[in-house]
Amino acid sequence: MIQTINISQKLDLFNEYWSPRIVGELNDSHVKLVKLKGEFVWHQHENEDELFLVIKGKLLIKLRDRDLWLNEGEFVIIPKGAEHCPVAEEEVHVMLLEPKSTLNTGDQQNERTVEAQWI
Amino acid sequence: MIQTINISQKLDLFNEYWSPRIVGELNDSHVKLVKLKGEFVWHQHENEDELFLVIKGKLLIKLRDRDLWLNEGEFVIIPKGAEHCPVAEEEVHVMLLEPKSTLNTGDQQNERTVEAQWI
Repeated sequence: MIQTINISQKLDLFNEYWSPRIVGELNDSHVKLVKLKGEFVWHQHENEDELFLVIKGKLLIKLRDRDLWLNEGEFVIIPKGAEHCPVAEEEVHVMLLEPKSTLNTGDQQNERTVEAQWI
Repeated sequence: MIQTINISQKLDLFNEYWSPRIVGELNDSHVKLVKLKGEFVWHQHENEDELFLVIKGKLLIKLRDRDLWLNEGEFVIIPKGAEHCPVAEEEVHVMLLEPKSTLNTGDQQNERTVEAQWI
Protein backbone atom coordinates (compact mmCIF):
# COMPACT_ATOMS: atom_id res chain seq x y z
CA MET A 1 0.00 0.00 0.00
CA ILE A 2 1.57 3.25 -1.17
CA GLN A 3 0.66 5.99 1.28
CA THR A 4 1.67 9.43 2.43
CA ILE A 5 3.36 9.41 5.85
CA ASN A 6 3.10 12.55 7.96
CA ILE A 7 6.16 12.66 10.21
CA SER A 8 4.61 14.92 12.83
CA GLN A 9 1.49 12.76 13.13
CA LYS A 10 3.62 9.65 13.56
CA LEU A 11 5.67 11.35 16.27
CA ASP A 12 2.45 12.08 18.16
CA LEU A 13 1.85 8.33 18.51
CA PHE A 14 4.53 7.66 21.11
CA ASN A 15 6.43 9.35 23.93
CA GLU A 16 9.16 6.95 24.99
CA TYR A 17 12.71 8.18 24.55
CA TRP A 18 15.43 6.19 22.80
CA SER A 19 12.88 3.78 21.37
CA PRO A 20 12.89 4.04 17.56
CA ARG A 21 9.65 3.28 15.70
CA ILE A 22 9.59 2.06 12.12
CA VAL A 23 7.53 4.20 9.72
CA GLY A 24 8.70 2.92 6.36
CA GLU A 25 10.84 0.43 4.50
CA LEU A 26 12.67 0.76 1.25
CA ASN A 27 15.16 -1.56 -0.32
CA ASP A 28 17.15 -3.04 2.61
CA SER A 29 16.48 -0.13 4.95
CA HIS A 30 14.02 1.11 7.51
CA VAL A 31 12.90 4.68 8.04
CA LYS A 32 12.51 5.23 11.77
CA LEU A 33 11.43 8.02 14.07
CA VAL A 34 12.82 8.44 17.53
CA LYS A 35 12.51 10.88 20.43
CA LEU A 36 15.70 11.54 22.35
CA LYS A 37 16.38 13.13 25.69
CA GLY A 38 19.51 12.78 27.79
CA GLU A 39 22.65 10.93 26.86
CA PHE A 40 22.82 7.60 25.07
CA VAL A 41 25.66 5.07 25.12
CA TRP A 42 28.81 5.00 23.03
CA HIS A 43 28.46 2.44 20.26
CA GLN A 44 29.20 1.71 16.63
CA HIS A 45 27.49 -0.21 13.87
CA GLU A 46 29.94 -2.63 12.37
CA ASN A 47 28.25 -3.02 8.99
CA GLU A 48 25.75 -0.21 8.68
CA ASP A 49 25.92 3.48 7.84
CA GLU A 50 23.25 5.43 9.69
CA LEU A 51 21.56 8.72 8.83
CA PHE A 52 20.25 11.11 11.51
CA LEU A 53 17.94 13.89 10.31
CA VAL A 54 16.80 16.32 13.00
CA ILE A 55 13.08 17.06 12.77
CA LYS A 56 12.85 19.11 15.95
CA GLY A 57 15.32 20.38 18.52
CA LYS A 58 19.11 20.36 18.64
CA LEU A 59 21.14 17.17 18.70
CA LEU A 60 24.71 16.63 19.78
CA ILE A 61 26.49 13.61 18.38
CA LYS A 62 29.76 13.02 20.14
CA LEU A 63 32.47 11.44 18.03
CA ARG A 64 35.74 10.25 19.51
CA ASP A 65 37.63 13.21 18.08
CA ARG A 66 35.01 16.00 18.15
CA ASP A 67 31.42 17.05 18.73
CA LEU A 68 28.87 17.39 15.94
CA TRP A 69 25.84 19.63 16.39
CA LEU A 70 22.67 19.24 14.35
CA ASN A 71 19.78 21.65 14.22
CA GLU A 72 16.36 21.19 12.66
CA GLY A 73 16.69 20.48 8.94
CA GLU A 74 20.22 19.13 9.26
CA PHE A 75 21.45 15.59 8.89
CA VAL A 76 24.59 13.58 9.33
CA ILE A 77 25.61 10.16 8.11
CA ILE A 78 27.61 8.13 10.58
CA PRO A 79 29.62 5.60 8.61
CA LYS A 80 29.96 2.01 9.70
CA GLY A 81 32.59 1.53 12.34
CA ALA A 82 32.53 5.12 13.63
CA GLU A 83 31.93 5.27 17.37
CA HIS A 84 29.31 7.82 18.32
CA CYS A 85 27.19 8.87 21.27
CA PRO A 86 24.02 10.92 20.73
CA VAL A 87 23.15 13.48 23.41
CA ALA A 88 19.96 15.53 23.66
CA GLU A 89 20.06 18.22 26.32
CA GLU A 90 16.42 18.99 25.53
CA GLU A 91 13.97 16.72 23.73
CA VAL A 92 14.94 16.07 20.12
CA HIS A 93 12.96 14.37 17.36
CA VAL A 94 14.96 12.51 14.76
CA MET A 95 14.34 10.59 11.56
CA LEU A 96 16.74 7.68 11.14
CA LEU A 97 17.57 5.80 8.02
CA GLU A 98 19.51 2.58 8.41
CA PRO A 99 19.61 -1.04 7.23
CA LYS A 100 16.92 -3.29 8.66
CA SER A 101 19.61 -5.23 10.49
CA THR A 102 20.62 -2.20 12.58
CA LEU A 103 20.34 -2.47 16.36
CA ASN A 104 19.97 0.83 18.23
CA THR A 105 22.95 0.15 20.46
CA GLY A 106 25.07 -1.26 17.65
CA ASP A 107 27.87 -3.45 18.99
CA GLN A 108 26.70 -2.93 22.58
CA GLN A 109 23.88 -4.98 24.02
CA ASN A 110 22.63 -3.61 27.30
CA GLU A 111 19.56 -2.21 29.05
CA ARG A 112 19.31 0.49 26.35
CA THR A 113 18.91 -2.09 23.59
CA VAL A 114 15.40 -2.19 22.12
CA GLU A 115 13.84 -3.73 19.07
CA ALA A 116 12.10 -1.18 16.89
CA GLN A 117 8.36 -1.65 16.30
CA TRP A 118 6.23 -0.47 13.39
CA ILE A 119 3.75 2.32 14.02
CA MET B 1 34.70 13.10 6.64
CA ILE B 2 31.68 13.04 8.95
CA GLN B 3 29.91 16.36 8.67
CA THR B 4 26.61 18.06 9.34
CA ILE B 5 24.62 18.76 6.17
CA ASN B 6 22.19 21.67 6.20
CA ILE B 7 19.42 20.88 3.72
CA SER B 8 18.36 24.47 3.19
CA GLN B 9 21.92 25.65 2.53
CA LYS B 10 22.43 22.87 0.01
CA LEU B 11 19.19 23.80 -1.77
CA ASP B 12 20.49 27.36 -2.14
CA LEU B 13 23.36 26.05 -4.27
CA PHE B 14 21.31 25.31 -7.38
CA ASN B 15 18.18 26.39 -9.21
CA GLU B 16 17.62 23.91 -12.02
CA TYR B 17 14.41 21.93 -11.84
CA TRP B 18 14.27 18.13 -12.15
CA SER B 19 18.01 17.85 -11.69
CA PRO B 20 18.74 15.93 -8.47
CA ARG B 21 21.97 16.73 -6.60
CA ILE B 22 23.68 14.21 -4.34
CA VAL B 23 24.26 15.38 -0.77
CA GLY B 24 25.10 12.14 0.98
CA GLU B 25 25.72 8.44 0.63
CA LEU B 26 25.01 5.64 3.00
CA ASN B 27 25.19 1.93 2.42
CA ASP B 28 24.09 1.43 -1.22
CA SER B 29 22.06 4.61 -1.38
CA HIS B 30 22.32 8.27 -2.19
CA VAL B 31 20.59 11.12 -0.44
CA LYS B 32 19.59 13.68 -3.06
CA LEU B 33 17.93 17.06 -3.15
CA VAL B 34 15.84 18.20 -6.07
CA LYS B 35 13.71 21.21 -7.02
CA LEU B 36 10.59 20.44 -8.97
CA LYS B 37 8.23 22.59 -11.00
CA GLY B 38 5.79 21.43 -13.62
CA GLU B 39 5.04 17.87 -14.63
CA PHE B 40 7.60 15.11 -15.01
CA VAL B 41 7.28 11.93 -17.10
CA TRP B 42 5.64 8.66 -16.20
CA HIS B 43 8.26 6.11 -15.25
CA GLN B 44 9.09 3.30 -12.88
CA HIS B 45 12.24 1.97 -11.27
CA GLU B 46 12.52 -1.71 -11.95
CA ASN B 47 14.77 -2.60 -9.03
CA GLU B 48 14.71 0.35 -6.66
CA ASP B 49 12.32 1.65 -4.04
CA GLU B 50 12.43 5.45 -3.85
CA LEU B 51 11.61 7.79 -0.98
CA PHE B 52 10.28 11.33 -1.55
CA LEU B 53 10.32 13.65 1.48
CA VAL B 54 8.84 17.10 0.89
CA ILE B 55 11.01 19.85 2.36
CA LYS B 56 9.02 22.76 0.95
CA GLY B 57 5.82 23.12 -1.05
CA LYS B 58 3.17 20.64 -2.06
CA LEU B 59 3.86 17.68 -4.30
CA LEU B 60 1.46 15.59 -6.33
CA ILE B 61 2.58 12.11 -7.25
CA LYS B 62 0.27 10.55 -9.77
CA LEU B 63 -0.07 6.79 -9.56
CA ARG B 64 -1.92 4.79 -12.19
CA ASP B 65 -4.89 4.25 -9.87
CA ARG B 66 -4.93 7.46 -7.81
CA ASP B 67 -3.27 10.73 -6.85
CA LEU B 68 -1.04 11.12 -3.80
CA TRP B 69 -0.54 14.54 -2.25
CA LEU B 70 2.43 15.36 -0.03
CA ASN B 71 2.88 18.46 2.05
CA GLU B 72 5.95 19.69 3.89
CA GLY B 73 7.09 17.10 6.43
CA GLU B 74 5.44 14.22 4.60
CA PHE B 75 7.06 11.39 2.69
CA VAL B 76 6.10 8.50 0.50
CA ILE B 77 7.97 5.41 -0.58
CA ILE B 78 7.34 4.37 -4.17
CA PRO B 79 8.11 0.67 -4.41
CA LYS B 80 10.02 -0.80 -7.31
CA GLY B 81 7.85 -1.40 -10.33
CA ALA B 82 5.19 1.18 -9.42
CA GLU B 83 4.61 3.66 -12.21
CA HIS B 84 4.51 7.24 -11.00
CA CYS B 85 4.58 10.77 -12.31
CA PRO B 86 5.55 13.66 -10.00
CA VAL B 87 3.79 16.98 -10.58
CA ALA B 88 4.60 20.31 -8.92
CA GLU B 89 2.10 23.04 -9.65
CA GLU B 90 4.32 25.46 -7.72
CA GLU B 91 7.99 24.98 -6.90
CA VAL B 92 8.60 22.05 -4.56
CA HIS B 93 11.80 21.02 -2.77
CA VAL B 94 12.26 17.34 -2.15
CA MET B 95 14.75 15.07 -0.45
CA LEU B 96 15.13 11.74 -2.25
CA LEU B 97 16.56 8.55 -0.94
CA GLU B 98 17.27 5.83 -3.45
CA PRO B 99 19.92 3.28 -4.46
CA LYS B 100 22.98 4.70 -6.19
CA SER B 101 21.94 2.89 -9.35
CA THR B 102 18.70 4.87 -9.66
CA LEU B 103 18.17 6.97 -12.78
CA ASN B 104 15.78 9.90 -12.43
CA THR B 105 13.61 8.76 -15.31
CA GLY B 106 13.74 5.10 -14.32
CA ASP B 107 12.94 2.84 -17.24
CA GLN B 108 12.54 5.82 -19.59
CA GLN B 109 15.55 7.45 -21.18
CA ASN B 110 14.73 10.74 -22.79
CA GLU B 111 15.49 14.45 -22.70
CA ARG B 112 14.52 14.54 -19.01
CA THR B 113 17.19 12.00 -18.08
CA VAL B 114 20.06 13.52 -16.10
CA GLU B 115 22.93 12.14 -14.08
CA ALA B 116 22.96 13.44 -10.54
CA GLN B 117 26.04 15.41 -9.43
CA TRP B 118 27.43 15.88 -5.93
CA ILE B 119 27.14 19.28 -4.35
